Amino acid sequence: MTNLHETTIHTTSIFNGKVINVQVDDVTLPNGETSKREIVKHPGAVGIIPITKDNKIVMVKQYRKPLNKTLMEIPAGKLESGEAPEATAIRELEEETGYTSDHLEYVTSFYTSPGFADEIIYLYKTNHLERVEDKLDMDEDEFVEIVEVTLEEAEELVREQVIHDAKTAYAILHLCTLRF
Amino acid sequence: MTNLHETTIHTTSIFNGKVINVQVDDVTLPNGETSKREIVKHPGAVGIIPITKDNKIVMVKQYRKPLNKTLMEIPAGKLESGEAPEATAIRELEEETGYTSDHLEYVTSFYTSPGFADEIIYLYKTNHLERVEDKLDMDEDEFVEIVEVTLEEAEELVREQVIHDAKTAYAILHLCTLRF
Repeated sequence: MTNLHETTIHTTSIFNGKVINVQVDDVTLPNGETSKREIVKHPGAVGIIPITKDNKIVMVKQYRKPLNKTLMEIPAGKLESGEAPEATAIRELEEETGYTSDHLEYVTSFYTSPGFADEIIYLYKTNHLERVEDKLDMDEDEFVEIVEVTLEEAEELVREQVIHDAKTAYAILHLCTLRF
Repeated sequence: MTNLHETTIHTTSIFNGKVINVQVDDVTLPNGETSKREIVKHPGAVGIIPITKDNKIVMVKQYRKPLNKTLMEIPAGKLESGEAPEATAIRELEEETGYTSDHLEYVTSFYTSPGFADEIIYLYKTNHLERVEDKLDMDEDEFVEIVEVTLEEAEELVREQVIHDAKTAYAILHLCTLRF
C-alpha cells in the first residue's frame, strides 16, 4: 500500500470560536515536500430520525446563515463538551421537536467534509416517540418550524432536492435501503 | 409559515486561505435579538461516481489531514474559479484515476455542513470511462491510491463504515436505490 501519511510540522491557530476553531498546519507530504492544510475543528454532532406512531418522519425547517436559505433537515445538533452522543440526540430531539424517546437506535456515523473539517455526525433513529409536556427550551439563537412527512414524501423531497442537506438526504436513503 | 430569516448587520473577515475563507456575521434573529454566526466560505466541489465497463466503481484512498486518517472516497475536488462543475468533474476524474469520460450524468447536489459552511457538492455519475495515455498531473500536494470495487462490495463497505465519508456513502446509497 502506498504511504499517504502527512506529518504535522507546526500548527498555527487562526480562530477560536463558539462553534468552530480554525488552524493552519504545516505538513510534510509523502514525497518529502511541505505544504499547508487549512483545518476547521468542530466538536462533532448528532442527527436523529424521529418516526411517529403513524410512520411520519419529524423534520425541522431551519434558516442556515452560511447559505442564507431555510433547509428542511432531520433534528440535529452539536455535541456539548463531555456529553455522550446519545444524550445529545435526546436533548436535541426534545428541544427542536417537543418529542422525547427512551429508545434510540444507532444507525451510522460519517465525516461531512473531510477535505477541510473534522466534523463527524452520529446518526440515530427512534420510533419510540412521546410528547413532552414542558419541553426543553431551544438555544436562544435557534428557531425552527416542525414538518412531519411520510417516508415516500421524504424520498420525493430528496429526489427534488427540496431536501438539500447531506445528512438528511443520507438518512432518508438509509431508511429506503432495506438491507441497512 | 414562521419567519426564520436572519439579517446580516455586519461581517468580520477572519481568514482568507487557499481553500477556505472564514468570517463572523453579526445577525438579527427572527425575535429581534442579535447573535453571531461563524461561517466557513468554500468554493464548492464535485464528486464523481466512475463505473468501469465491468461494473466496478473507481474509488481513491486519500489521507485527510483534518482527521489524520486515510479515507476511501469517490474522486472529488474543489471548483476552480470560473470553472463549470462538469469541467471540474472531468479534470478531477482524470487527475485522480487516469480515466476520462465524454458523458457525465448529473445525479444530485447537496450541502455538506450547512450549520457552519456553505460548501455544496455536485454529484455526477459516468459509465463511459476511457483510459488516458498521458494523464493530467494531480495537484502537487495530492496523493491517492486507486481501488476498484463492485457495487455490492461498496455497499458492504458503507455498512461497515470503512467508507466513512458522507459524499461517498451517499453516492453509493444513490446507486443502491433503484428509483433514483
